[in-house]
Amino acid sequence: MIGDVPNVEAGHEFSTRRQAHEAGVHRPLQAGICGTKKIGAESIVVSGGYKDDEDYGDVIVYTGHGGQDGAGNQVSDQSLDDSGNAALVTSYLEGLPVRVVRGYQGDTPYAPAVGYRYDGLYRVTSYGNKLGIDGFRIWQFRLEAYDDTPMPQAAEQSELPSAPADSDSPGIAGNETPERITSTVQRIVRSSAVKRQVKAWHDNRCQICDLRIEVPGGSYSEGAHIRALGSPHNGPDTTGNVLCLCPNCHVMLDAGAVVIEDDFTVIRPGHPAGALRTDERHTIDLDCVRHHRDRWRQ
Amino acid sequence: MIGDVPNVEAGHEFSTRRQAHEAGVHRPLQAGICGTKKIGAESIVVSGGYKDDEDYGDVIVYTGHGGQDGAGNQVSDQSLDDSGNAALVTSYLEGLPVRVVRGYQGDTPYAPAVGYRYDGLYRVTSYGNKLGIDGFRIWQFRLEAYDDTPMPQAAEQSELPSAPADSDSPGIAGNETPERITSTVQRIVRSSAVKRQVKAWHDNRCQICDLRIEVPGGSYSEGAHIRALGSPHNGPDTTGNVLCLCPNCHVMLDAGAVVIEDDFTVIRPGHPAGALRTDERHTIDLDCVRHHRDRWRQ
Repeated sequence: MIGDVPNVEAGHEFSTRRQAHEAGVHRPLQAGICGTKKIGAESIVVSGGYKDDEDYGDVIVYTGHGGQDGAGNQVSDQSLDDSGNAALVTSYLEGLPVRVVRGYQGDTPYAPAVGYRYDGLYRVTSYGNKLGIDGFRIWQFRLEAYDDTPMPQAAEQSELPSAPADSDSPGIAGNETPERITSTVQRIVRSSAVKRQVKAWHDNRCQICDLRIEVPGGSYSEGAHIRALGSPHNGPDTTGNVLCLCPNCHVMLDAGAVVIEDDFTVIRPGHPAGALRTDERHTIDLDCVRHHRDRWRQ
Repeated sequence: MIGDVPNVEAGHEFSTRRQAHEAGVHRPLQAGICGTKKIGAESIVVSGGYKDDEDYGDVIVYTGHGGQDGAGNQVSDQSLDDSGNAALVTSYLEGLPVRVVRGYQGDTPYAPAVGYRYDGLYRVTSYGNKLGIDGFRIWQFRLEAYDDTPMPQAAEQSELPSAPADSDSPGIAGNETPERITSTVQRIVRSSAVKRQVKAWHDNRCQICDLRIEVPGGSYSEGAHIRALGSPHNGPDTTGNVLCLCPNCHVMLDAGAVVIEDDFTVIRPGHPAGALRTDERHTIDLDCVRHHRDRWRQ
């Protein structure tokens, strides 16, 4: 499952990987990444297995899986075809939370002295590849704690590195409490289960402009509510009220730059009329379409 | 100025509008919205002047300015040409924080008993128009408190309405503490001063695909860092490291689906090469362009 496991809060300690496995916090006994390209990454273990890892407590630079020999040396390039790495790309593209477990083997101040510790939910805010210390290409994922994820326990306060938010604010050493850095990435819209269903039906292809944005390891789209949630619109969070859109068409739908007729004609002032692409599995709620249209009538 | 005023924290009380004016919290003595289309809305006063307003504490449905007679009746349609309304659209499009002041005149549980109270920063998460209670078209703006904005003080706990997050969770009356609802909109990327400069130079037109997204009351673009901020990339937060992009090209740049050559050729695998549109005021940092390219070489 994605997200917190029932009855296990951040800070919960496990003596062994098997205990973490049995609690459902990190299910594999060996692999550092639990997840698949389809569902995303459920959890990762940060345990110092890769030389290029970095750990600032609320920010982790996590090296992907693969390409190591038995002694922990990088001997070949990593790939996004690896299912663990592909899972982390999906977590990024869908804006999904990842459970982070730290192991005693890590050589950072945030590693527990013994055993394993569940440290709460993080999100993947960027990824990319580079030549690692051993000269082979590695994939790296930046994970940031959510605002309500507690800062993990540190071994010795005086040795804490602070996360570099940008190059103009070098890390502050010493006794100061490390500040939560401002999230550097806010682009990716988190997909709820309802949105993911709609996006899956449409295979991430925009229902308005037909674009599918291809990125390394996957494709990206957004689930857009037709009738907005919350007051004053009070739209329902149902598949009938969600469209699969590219980010541009999402902005235009949210701000009324496009409206949709009952016959699914798409009206964009100053442009030729288009047609919303539909799918027989996806029944669109016409009440929501009408409410959106009424909201933007001028 | 946009954002918190120095030395005035949420919860600060003022006996009169003039005191709030002198503190710089809400500068106009009469108008409910302080701001312009160019800079966005600095602050609003919620004081029960419009019948269609709603106030749930951490969520406010705020009616725009205009169209009233002296007695507070709506006698004509409101317009986004009104500078206060246009300011709130800019706050939405730029993802900027708005200071919220509540006045004693409001008839909600969150209105102070006397005088005015600064209640911290909110963001505009959607807008739209509708026929108001008096039969004329009004513009409404949904404002949501940031996660770290304290819940405003309420007069009588037992009368609190709770904010409807969606139509499946009707407001819960009674003694329960109102839960912070999940933000319904995460689409808009907040613009820093650096990003706003770049977007202004390019007039919100995408430097890669040339699209400018027009919406009622303005246009929308995003400032995109070429070399990502934060570890492991540590790009600078400077105009030379920011491009003005549409959301789609922003997603593609962030995930390496496009890279840029030193001569500003844009490479998108499977598509013809393009050219980055440049502007003589905007000097692009080639070190950042190279770092981004290196990150996505495969």
